[in-house]
Amino acid sequence: MSIPPFTFDLSHCEGHARRGQFQTPHGVIPMPAFAPVGTLANVKTLEPRDLTELECTLILANTYHLYLRPGHQLVKQLGGLHQFMQWPGPMLTDSGGYQVFSLAHRRKLDEDGVLFNSHIDGSRHYFTPEKVIEIEEALGADIIMVLDECAEPLDRDYMQQALARTHRWAERCRAAQQRGDQALFGIVQGGIFADLRVQSAQFLSELDFPGYAIGGLAVGETKEQMYATLDETCPAMPANKPRYLMGVGAPEDIVEAVYRGVDMFDCVLPTRIARNGAFLTPHGRLNIRNAQYAEDERPIQEDCDCYVCRTFSRAYLRHLYKAGEISALRFGTIHNVRFMSRLMAQIRQAIEQGKFADFRAQFLADYQISNQKVRHEQRQRRVNAMQSL
Amino acid sequence: MSIPPFTFDLSHCEGHARRGQFQTPHGVIPMPAFAPVGTLANVKTLEPRDLTELECTLILANTYHLYLRPGHQLVKQLGGLHQFMQWPGPMLTDSGGYQVFSLAHRRKLDEDGVLFNSHIDGSRHYFTPEKVIEIEEALGADIIMVLDECAEPLDRDYMQQALARTHRWAERCRAAQQRGDQALFGIVQGGIFADLRVQSAQFLSELDFPGYAIGGLAVGETKEQMYATLDETCPAMPANKPRYLMGVGAPEDIVEAVYRGVDMFDCVLPTRIARNGAFLTPHGRLNIRNAQYAEDERPIQEDCDCYVCRTFSRAYLRHLYKAGEISALRFGTIHNVRFMSRLMAQIRQAIEQGKFADFRAQFLADYQISNQKVRHEQRQRRVNAMQSL
Repeated sequence: MSIPPFTFDLSHCEGHARRGQFQTPHGVIPMPAFAPVGTLANVKTLEPRDLTELECTLILANTYHLYLRPGHQLVKQLGGLHQFMQWPGPMLTDSGGYQVFSLAHRRKLDEDGVLFNSHIDGSRHYFTPEKVIEIEEALGADIIMVLDECAEPLDRDYMQQALARTHRWAERCRAAQQRGDQALFGIVQGGIFADLRVQSAQFLSELDFPGYAIGGLAVGETKEQMYATLDETCPAMPANKPRYLMGVGAPEDIVEAVYRGVDMFDCVLPTRIARNGAFLTPHGRLNIRNAQYAEDERPIQEDCDCYVCRTFSRAYLRHLYKAGEISALRFGTIHNVRFMSRLMAQIRQAIEQGKFADFRAQFLADYQISNQKVRHEQRQRRVNAMQSL
Repeated sequence: MSIPPFTFDLSHCEGHARRGQFQTPHGVIPMPAFAPVGTLANVKTLEPRDLTELECTLILANTYHLYLRPGHQLVKQLGGLHQFMQWPGPMLTDSGGYQVFSLAHRRKLDEDGVLFNSHIDGSRHYFTPEKVIEIEEALGADIIMVLDECAEPLDRDYMQQALARTHRWAERCRAAQQRGDQALFGIVQGGIFADLRVQSAQFLSELDFPGYAIGGLAVGETKEQMYATLDETCPAMPANKPRYLMGVGAPEDIVEAVYRGVDMFDCVLPTRIARNGAFLTPHGRLNIRNAQYAEDERPIQEDCDCYVCRTFSRAYLRHLYKAGEISALRFGTIHNVRFMSRLMAQIRQAIEQGKFADFRAQFLADYQISNQKVRHEQRQRRVNAMQSL
């Protein structure tokens, strides 16, 4: 295995916040970075030229979904994910672990791996660390993830067992890797338990991965628990490697996590809520279906440079959502993806200028966080829907 | 009422085929022209910049749908359709008659107008010729249509009665028009009966509309009946005004209708079949869901210049359709709309060069027409669905 060209450089730090860049075979990722999710090799409603225009620097695709459909072997045969979806920039695949463990009653775990039934047709499949690496190598993303167990974050006893297995699986993934042009990231687990997180970070550091993720957060714990966990975990992670908080994408959480030393994020949130009619703005979410926008000639966000804000009124966008037009889903997605890429650019600039503390204070003062109870209920509905498949 | 700037110039004729242009307040429409349908002030999945890139020269919006949602008064208040949807080019609205008459059991006709129940919420509404003109003036398209009755094309007795009423309604629409910057087109009816069509064309010619449509075709009769009707109708229509065949958009029908002297078309076909996975090609429809495309690395159409053909493989597009990705609907639409705009450009060039007869022969030799029985069954399902609302 040749030495991969994955260099991580930090240019500025302010407190725990870091401004850096990560070199990949498909380009540099300026950090902190946010990756929109393109589950099935497509960021829903968008195309590669949009992602470029919206200044996306990294996108994520889901191994579980692509393994099932169209199949990793077909993607490989067609030249890999970059060629398949025609995205020329940096790309990341998860391990599929999160999806498989979300299947609850449809999966069975043992030391070697996890047996599960497809949510599409019920067919049986078996993921081992080695199998997941094989799949991710076939897909060919720039950053790939180890198979881990995303266990219930508040159950300490189970978490300890799961953590030991996750560490053994991380070693097996490391050993299974064949390709030298993919950065395999380890995943720190440990739920909300600081000592387990530190233990996990230390164990994985020994394996010298080119980057490290923090998994198993934003899965049901409170924001306060998540932030406290980051406070303990980040300092225990290698300072010279990127730190990736998986599945986090609420703007306020990103700002808070950067403040605690995180460099990378991914989440379906900006694209999913767009399809529900929620536009991200510096003041929080704007629900375009509200009657107050029926005659509103203003753009969603006055100072946004996205095509949607440059072109359409809130009244028109509301009409499209109310009428169920497909374009509405796209227009919301365009704006929200651009909102996120601008947020990350603003964060990077603030750190460069040593003004991130001010930026954070101002952002959190302006941004009205959507109701936590409502968010948790929404999340629980999604989890239940997945588990009842 | 000031004299509108609607000039129609013919530059080339070959047999009955005509190459011309129609001047509107929002630009020149080169003819023959095809208008994609943007029912609710949006060509489904596309945005104005796409329409420009795809070289669309005219788009249609539906009066019935916009009257119900978001309401013509709101569109007017927001600056009219062009401003509302941000399409800067020529636009056309139908009269809503076709939709209302499609409601079957949910509408009641008398001399003054037609009473109907909304397909959305069952609310009652009444369209008269004067009301329809009021709505179309509020919407503000460049070309607007009279209210007509789209009667069963094969029932001669009923057609005669309906025709007389349609003519009285055309006079009332003409009299009701207030704005001088919209071209009001008359609509020739008469089903498949040549003498009624000629009678209708002659009657309406007296009213001196700036353009004339042929309505009530492609609604259940055979292709042979439609072509024969055009053979009789076009020569009876004014030669110095554009001739618009409403609701026709199958490529082979357009070629045959241009051959018989038609200048304008609109149809949902290219965009609707795109959403079902059918791509238009010079050889006929390509159903991307077919297993034969699973590993096909070629573009949909080798010589097509659309973004989709320049970017994606058939294998990728098939994957997106099979997986139910929203982007698939958009990619199909982009290609099919571009296919149509290129077809019209090819037709125009052929007429200019005096080679349209050759073009027609070659096109029809290459283009495999989709099964008529299947098409009629599909149409019947849509009609039944509409009537059972």
